[in-house]
Amino acid sequence: MLDRVRTTDLPNIAEDTEVLLKGWIHQIRDLGKIRFWLLRDSAGLAQIVLVSPKKHPSWEIINEIKQEYVVQVIGIVRHNEKAPDGVEVEFKSCEIIAKAVTPLPFSVVEQKTKANFDTRLKYRYLDLRSPKTRAIFKVRAFCVQGARDWFLKNNFIEIHSPKIISAGAEGGATLFPLYYFGKEAYLAQSPQFYKQVGIQAFERVFEIAPFFRAEKSRTRRHLSESWGIDVEVAFAESRDIMEIQEGLLISMYSSVKEHCKKELKLHDISDLKIPKAPFPKITFEEAVEIAKAKGYKVSLDEDLSAEAERAVRENFDTHFFIIEFPLTAVTFYYGPHETKPKFTHKLDLLAPGANGLELTSGGKRIIDPETLIRRAKETGIAPKGLGWYLDMFKVGGIPPHAGFGMGLDRVVMTILNLPTVQEAVMFPRTVDILKP
Amino acid sequence: MLDRVRTTDLPNIAEDTEVLLKGWIHQIRDLGKIRFWLLRDSAGLAQIVLVSPKKHPSWEIINEIKQEYVVQVIGIVRHNEKAPDGVEVEFKSCEIIAKAVTPLPFSVVEQKTKANFDTRLKYRYLDLRSPKTRAIFKVRAFCVQGARDWFLKNNFIEIHSPKIISAGAEGGATLFPLYYFGKEAYLAQSPQFYKQVGIQAFERVFEIAPFFRAEKSRTRRHLSESWGIDVEVAFAESRDIMEIQEGLLISMYSSVKEHCKKELKLHDISDLKIPKAPFPKITFEEAVEIAKAKGYKVSLDEDLSAEAERAVRENFDTHFFIIEFPLTAVTFYYGPHETKPKFTHKLDLLAPGANGLELTSGGKRIIDPETLIRRAKETGIAPKGLGWYLDMFKVGGIPPHAGFGMGLDRVVMTILNLPTVQEAVMFPRTVDILKP
Repeated sequence: MLDRVRTTDLPNIAEDTEVLLKGWIHQIRDLGKIRFWLLRDSAGLAQIVLVSPKKHPSWEIINEIKQEYVVQVIGIVRHNEKAPDGVEVEFKSCEIIAKAVTPLPFSVVEQKTKANFDTRLKYRYLDLRSPKTRAIFKVRAFCVQGARDWFLKNNFIEIHSPKIISAGAEGGATLFPLYYFGKEAYLAQSPQFYKQVGIQAFERVFEIAPFFRAEKSRTRRHLSESWGIDVEVAFAESRDIMEIQEGLLISMYSSVKEHCKKELKLHDISDLKIPKAPFPKITFEEAVEIAKAKGYKVSLDEDLSAEAERAVRENFDTHFFIIEFPLTAVTFYYGPHETKPKFTHKLDLLAPGANGLELTSGGKRIIDPETLIRRAKETGIAPKGLGWYLDMFKVGGIPPHAGFGMGLDRVVMTILNLPTVQEAVMFPRTVDILKP
Repeated sequence: MLDRVRTTDLPNIAEDTEVLLKGWIHQIRDLGKIRFWLLRDSAGLAQIVLVSPKKHPSWEIINEIKQEYVVQVIGIVRHNEKAPDGVEVEFKSCEIIAKAVTPLPFSVVEQKTKANFDTRLKYRYLDLRSPKTRAIFKVRAFCVQGARDWFLKNNFIEIHSPKIISAGAEGGATLFPLYYFGKEAYLAQSPQFYKQVGIQAFERVFEIAPFFRAEKSRTRRHLSESWGIDVEVAFAESRDIMEIQEGLLISMYSSVKEHCKKELKLHDISDLKIPKAPFPKITFEEAVEIAKAKGYKVSLDEDLSAEAERAVRENFDTHFFIIEFPLTAVTFYYGPHETKPKFTHKLDLLAPGANGLELTSGGKRIIDPETLIRRAKETGIAPKGLGWYLDMFKVGGIPPHAGFGMGLDRVVMTILNLPTVQEAVMFPRTVDILKP
């Protein structure tokens, strides 16, 4: 029996070779005396040519086949300048492997009108067969691979932190409560505390894993369940983790550019611009000035509103950092800046432009237990709720360290210029979406 | 200022070079006129020699330093056959970066008596500094890397499935319920349904992610939260996924053997035996015969007990498969075997010996909706609870496929011959353990 050949291998196969293809019937064009099938496999598309189909000994099967049927086709390779990719397969015989309903809930052929996002999600198993949807998740996979490549080249060690926890890293407001063998538990909103433990073994750690936030926000950038790329580094300052973020993001973009040429084109990105390091850095005070000058109400005491942040992003055409966030706008584990005590070493990395957004948050951590207790109280967290995390700094031997969390879904969204972050996730979870 | 040098780089640095080291004081040996510090960083250990420490201008700092203090030391490289790794550093000056309590809750020096597992977990930030504990998690990281390398070489695409779900893949008994914006939700016990969707885009998919099981079992092999390596492949039979499991496991072992030489030695493994493909295969019926012959009560209608399974494992000194599990002992999505209708294509991969255990479960899936409905009913699952999963097979165009889930924690446990799977997880979760 013939070995299966992938559609993308066809251009490299000699004229007249008999081949076996397996895949889905993507499209059927019937010109009467000649019929074309586009056969889709996970690699791409192949054109099958059926000459005089009605006179063909396999006519009964040929006539039965509809879009999205799974088939195997035996045919002869024909190199032909007019065919897609310069090659087509002359039909010889076929077998139906699995059937699909007719009509389909919606077409997965790109040129045709797409269903709305809710319908696409409802039939995600169908939607994922659309080359354009599929492209998103190939880009996502190579984003992750680009990140991993960079971590391994730079001597980081992967850790896995628990997703079921007894207390939150950033206070209780955005935690999902869970029933855990009669005990009170929550879903982890970040691996923050655990990656700070991980550096006691490895100094440079990363984790790529889901995290959970029970925010009721219905925006283009919020999810209840996201994947984060988390990093923590011992003996590091905020400037070190900015360099790491630059290297990491450049590696992610480069990986996508190298491995996803067709996929980028399907999303109308003809030449993905790889960010250039060093990225510009502005202080939070400077960001506030920019937003003020554009007429936004902003304060040095709280984080920028979504609108004010967009006003700042529009001043940039490259990724950039906002550094030195004010003490009043950050989580308790960020401490006062040595020379500017109303500010901190917390910083964000932002993607530029109107469709850009915050990609990372991070900075240098507090390691002095007294300062931690004071900052916890100032931000409304009871120090006794910090339990073992606070004990860690009391027992000590904790080196200075810094780290950040990057939103993978958001990086995919900005690379492909998707309208919402939900589009970057195969099975998104929001206030309103729990299925499939 | 000097750049920091890692302890493991010292053997390659020329005699008399001045170096800066940063790390933790692992051990102090005071011989009066000469004092030795073992300085530990994430790479390894370095011996610092202090000659006539009490006459040294830095005596006050030298005298203050205790175990697990974080320090930076400047010294001179001295190659010396008697020193560990043939090199030591002659002390010049030092600075205390962070202090630790004295006495420590327990020693992290390998030779000394270790605390029990509960105490080690309570102070995990301390325990992870012990080279032997650290070794476990480096081995774990390179297990994962070995798996990823294999997937990428074999054209698999990484997917991310949701961990918050509306219904379980294997019935409700082992689900953790969750409060999700007023709706009933659960933690995913497996990415089963979602990886079956993923193959509609990519044919060959994998996911490495946490999964959750609310089992009240207190055994050496159970966790409430585990990491799984999940695989699903379109157009595949059970024999194909056995080959994949062999390739994958060999790649994981090879990666550990290549990258974790020192770590394996710390766990008394001088020569890690890489499994050889093909692994032996026995049918469930044959496994039952083996257990029966050893005096165990076994039945063809239910899965092997832990004891009977061990009796079977003891017959093997290599990884092996048990294939063709009975219909009465498998989840609903496994269908009857074509020629042996009381059996299925479900199979397990087991690590051999008394400390071995089940590493994977998998097989060929049902794609016919009528069979799925019948099997769901037979296993006590209401078909309407299957919702979109059942719809997927009705809408159709679903190719035949097979897959498996591998327990990463269990692979690490068997590679290092750890007494329980809890030891293979940085922050384990069990019926009794929710912190840290």
